[in-house]
Amino acid sequence: MSKVITPKDKDYSQWYNDIVIKAGLADHSAVKGCMVIKPYGYAIWERMQAVLDGMFKETGHVNAYFPLFIPKSFFAKEAAHVEGFAKECAVVTHYRLKNSPDGGLVVDEDAKLEEELIVRPTSETIIWNTYKGWIQSYRDLPLLINQWANVVRWEMRTRLFLRTAEFLWQEGHTAHATRQEAVEEAERMLNVYADFAEKFMSVPVIKGTKTASERFAGALETYCIEAMMLDGKALQAGTSHFLGQNFAKAFDVKFLNKEGKSELVWATSWGVSTRLIGALIMSHSDDEGLVLPPLLAPIQVVIIPVFRDEEQLGKITEVVSVLKKNLVADGIRTKYDTDDNRSPGWKFAEYELKGVPVRIAIGPRDLEKGTVEIYRRDKREKQFVPMEGLEAYIKKMLEEIQHDLFKKAETFRTDHSHKADTYAEFKELLDKGNFVWAHWDGTSETEEKIKEETKATIRCIPLNNKLEEGKCVYSGKPSTQRVIFAKAY
Amino acid sequence: MSKVITPKDKDYSQWYNDIVIKAGLADHSAVKGCMVIKPYGYAIWERMQAVLDGMFKETGHVNAYFPLFIPKSFFAKEAAHVEGFAKECAVVTHYRLKNSPDGGLVVDEDAKLEEELIVRPTSETIIWNTYKGWIQSYRDLPLLINQWANVVRWEMRTRLFLRTAEFLWQEGHTAHATRQEAVEEAERMLNVYADFAEKFMSVPVIKGTKTASERFAGALETYCIEAMMLDGKALQAGTSHFLGQNFAKAFDVKFLNKEGKSELVWATSWGVSTRLIGALIMSHSDDEGLVLPPLLAPIQVVIIPVFRDEEQLGKITEVVSVLKKNLVADGIRTKYDTDDNRSPGWKFAEYELKGVPVRIAIGPRDLEKGTVEIYRRDKREKQFVPMEGLEAYIKKMLEEIQHDLFKKAETFRTDHSHKADTYAEFKELLDKGNFVWAHWDGTSETEEKIKEETKATIRCIPLNNKLEEGKCVYSGKPSTQRVIFAKAY
Repeated sequence: MSKVITPKDKDYSQWYNDIVIKAGLADHSAVKGCMVIKPYGYAIWERMQAVLDGMFKETGHVNAYFPLFIPKSFFAKEAAHVEGFAKECAVVTHYRLKNSPDGGLVVDEDAKLEEELIVRPTSETIIWNTYKGWIQSYRDLPLLINQWANVVRWEMRTRLFLRTAEFLWQEGHTAHATRQEAVEEAERMLNVYADFAEKFMSVPVIKGTKTASERFAGALETYCIEAMMLDGKALQAGTSHFLGQNFAKAFDVKFLNKEGKSELVWATSWGVSTRLIGALIMSHSDDEGLVLPPLLAPIQVVIIPVFRDEEQLGKITEVVSVLKKNLVADGIRTKYDTDDNRSPGWKFAEYELKGVPVRIAIGPRDLEKGTVEIYRRDKREKQFVPMEGLEAYIKKMLEEIQHDLFKKAETFRTDHSHKADTYAEFKELLDKGNFVWAHWDGTSETEEKIKEETKATIRCIPLNNKLEEGKCVYSGKPSTQRVIFAKAY
Repeated sequence: MSKVITPKDKDYSQWYNDIVIKAGLADHSAVKGCMVIKPYGYAIWERMQAVLDGMFKETGHVNAYFPLFIPKSFFAKEAAHVEGFAKECAVVTHYRLKNSPDGGLVVDEDAKLEEELIVRPTSETIIWNTYKGWIQSYRDLPLLINQWANVVRWEMRTRLFLRTAEFLWQEGHTAHATRQEAVEEAERMLNVYADFAEKFMSVPVIKGTKTASERFAGALETYCIEAMMLDGKALQAGTSHFLGQNFAKAFDVKFLNKEGKSELVWATSWGVSTRLIGALIMSHSDDEGLVLPPLLAPIQVVIIPVFRDEEQLGKITEVVSVLKKNLVADGIRTKYDTDDNRSPGWKFAEYELKGVPVRIAIGPRDLEKGTVEIYRRDKREKQFVPMEGLEAYIKKMLEEIQHDLFKKAETFRTDHSHKADTYAEFKELLDKGNFVWAHWDGTSETEEKIKEETKATIRCIPLNNKLEEGKCVYSGKPSTQRVIFAKAY
């Protein structure tokens, strides 16, 4: 039987696509650049949403919903923002179709909008236009709001989960009375993202700030978490922006402070998207398919009966019912797959591909011996374990998998992180797929030239970075700290 | 102090709008016809989503996500569907803006789409086009998928929650091997909706089928639940459609059955939307504002401290901490509002307006006496209750409120439901705001004429309707059953 998945070392890009498609995570759609998120992929997103939503609420945020459409003129109000976002976007120009003489459907030219509407690429403008009506006094602040939504950014070259014209995300938009509060909020949410990535996705991340040229359009500071994928490239997994008073100025949002004076409001915004599923895939998977950290796995344990007839299945089911009940009572997402349209072999391969952390197989001989066969997906290890005390054993195993995946990813990143002090060394390390810690002279010119020559960008200036005298790896000019360069998704 | 809310009997429509705006449920947006769902309104939607999502999953459904955009040509494939949906819609024609010479932004005519994209008004077409690739054999059926999404239907006359250009909803789309299975599915989901309305929203509903002229565009049968609002009008609160093989035909979706023969797939779709929030408001609220059934209330119990200084607040908080902990442990959504920017009087009015089912006030004298003041929102009754055993008391009170709201709404509906046997009687009853049970000759012509003359429509032919010989209230022709006529939202 030929391999279902193209080996990673043979063709990394194809390996990724194979996993997305064959594990049933997503599909290309009939609409250029848009994907269909299939039930299994969506179930992972639901887990991510549930955890993140809980973390947002614990930090005092509430959800709301703002319009999908943004009047074109809104974008023109914040100069940097329009350059960054309004260009490549879906534009609604009409609101009606009519029958054409040949029997088809055509746009009704009588139904042209006075002002075109943009399908939101991000919602700062429509939200700050709304906040104007909600904020009068210091009593109305802070406003800590998040939105779960779809957004559209017209992309010509798309990749499932990583870059699509439409994607799902959350966008937090907060309003504050002081600069300090807003900065603290932006940093708080960066930490929430980092915690989520490391504790739930088992993906180690580096927290840092973006250089001026990589900043969010309209931000004074962009904080980010950067993760290393299995090809040594970087993936920006989440960003949190300190927006200063830029949007308050653009939309004239002021408040009366406790002294009765009118002041402009301070802002942040922060977001993560279905891109995280791409990051998850490229952090842990192997040539057999997806590998999922238990905390985000839609199915944590799958139980597969191996039987020849109904009688055998009946006996197995008797035992499994109790086991499953106990596992579920322990909060473990367990599936007992009794589908008799599929063979055990087909199921083994399917759940391997789908990255279910733990697989249990039970046949008549296991019943006799009082054992089950347990397969641990990440290590691809099989073992026979007594039925007695199985629940505790599995619970511990899930915790170990969660922990081991993180450690493995961390080791991989360490092995692929190096300092470079010469440009030759720098380029070689980048080509081999590494995070390269190098001195940089702090100018956008150097950054731009390095990008042209190597396709690498400064991923971030790490927070609490060690200061160290040095010379820019490109220009030789003096520098006070190393920053992280890498090729990126 | 003047009333915040326009009295219902003075101006029903203004009463509704006042509640939506002043209870902080939603706001008009800068985009014509689109609303902003404010945090408190969205929190109600989140409760609805959580409950419904659980019910969908219990009945075997999974979630997925399909593109926002639908190619124009897809609509043309199902003839009835295009008539019903593709006309009043948002049309994306371009994918780029550019700077204009005068410094503004204009649509880039070089970036015109080859085929226009429609912002989904409903997703049957894009989903069935996708299902074609997912369904090959009977093993792939049934496919039981739901999507939580935003949709757009261009509406000229909009009302917050009830009719807006963009709204949030869920749409289930299932595929089956047999006609019977599909019909059973459509009926199963109708029952899920009815259970949700009655048990969680405390809104009694009538289950029935639509007449041919009120059917979903492309359906063979549309099942619906109809609720009565406080002005005696009907609101369609949810629909479930048996689509036959119409979409399978349009998108060529066939499967190999167990005998290896190719057959067309059978379909259903079903949905409820943020319109349910409108139904909730118009089922229970009063002239003081919103009244919420406890099971959907974001805050079930609010505790307000009444104090003169920090010392008093400290003592109150000591007691409340324990109370709140116990309530939360019982699964009761409890808020302790210590905001010192607002007075107790302001808070009382605010939570009254927001329909929080139970309000507890505690001051220094209550501490001395070991009692609290409890206010029950639906009955507007105040009482003093001993601290001892308070948790159990409140739990019981919440259950009573949930039950009493349903009974009250049911009584209201009974009082506003009447049989009519003459057209004069029929028209008078409709004008006064009633569900009118009347004989109908079964023709679309009669239905249309009654609609023209009275603005009333046939809300549904109730399921398991009692058969009864009679004469059509309009044409005098023979009829075998009464159907429900009403003016509707």
